[in-house]
Amino acid sequence: MEAILSRRSIRRYTEGIVSDDQLEQLLRAAMSAPSAGNEQPWRFIVIRDRATMKKIQDFHPFARMLDEASALVLVSGDLNLEKHKGFWVQDCSAATENMLIAAQSIGLGAVWLGLYPIKERVEGMRRLLGIPEHIIPLSLVAIGHPAEKKPPSDRYDQSRVHRERWQNAK
Amino acid sequence: MEAILSRRSIRRYTEGIVSDDQLEQLLRAAMSAPSAGNEQPWRFIVIRDRATMKKIQDFHPFARMLDEASALVLVSGDLNLEKHKGFWVQDCSAATENMLIAAQSIGLGAVWLGLYPIKERVEGMRRLLGIPEHIIPLSLVAIGHPAEKKPPSDRYDQSRVHRERWQNAK
Repeated sequence: MEAILSRRSIRRYTEGIVSDDQLEQLLRAAMSAPSAGNEQPWRFIVIRDRATMKKIQDFHPFARMLDEASALVLVSGDLNLEKHKGFWVQDCSAATENMLIAAQSIGLGAVWLGLYPIKERVEGMRRLLGIPEHIIPLSLVAIGHPAEKKPPSDRYDQSRVHRERWQNAK
Repeated sequence: MEAILSRRSIRRYTEGIVSDDQLEQLLRAAMSAPSAGNEQPWRFIVIRDRATMKKIQDFHPFARMLDEASALVLVSGDLNLEKHKGFWVQDCSAATENMLIAAQSIGLGAVWLGLYPIKERVEGMRRLLGIPEHIIPLSLVAIGHPAEKKPPSDRYDQSRVHRERWQNAK
């Protein structure tokens, strides 16, 4: 709970390396996410290559933090693994969120970069990493040792909570 | 991290009541999720009415656990709040996942019921709760005090992890 409430998007990183063991912990968290009919339609590509991180900035306007990130994980949906058509985005989003919380809980900093459904970004990732048609890039998670501290952001908004029916705001 | 790895879908509940304070903790976790451009496009409807929980079972084939659930939260996307078109599903999925992990971490049991993009379920919720067109029901989270224990399910699968490019499985 603490990790959920204190998590913030971290975009500045020190030069410290995120270890393979730490990455495995994040991937283990990702794959612990629920999915429709337990279909687990996810595929992950772990990227450490600096040239790849630079090239992503050619087609992603909000990826400057990749100059400092120690590692990057691409989360994609595999349409061949879907049992319940149309749910892969939700499944892979839950997996992405788990990675962010896990990163927070082990002292790393991370941020979610949106790809899908923006065609230019999806196709850019596809071309760059040789990703076939049945795999759809959904999100990127940039990871590093945090070089910025942000206080918890209390986003709780009671006006978003309704009771029993739509019209009854709390 | 512990809550992420030990979370399972819990569909059997005791007669214990989930308190308003506990529900607020779950909603606070939900609203701590990241969203595209921090748009926070979510809307929540908290349901305790047993008649509503029964009626949902008329159009949702996997909702039997609602006979035992103490509370139910509908997570919806508000298209009027979207800044980055097409990202509301991911934002609201992250919020849903946060609720599940938060429930686990405070000793409650919960399960994610899929609605969107299955038209019959989305329209069923819309009719039942009087939800307008610009609000799209995404998911339901059934919540209760757990009457079943499940061991952590280790879903880690190394074959889903690729390195640097698509073809390089780990």
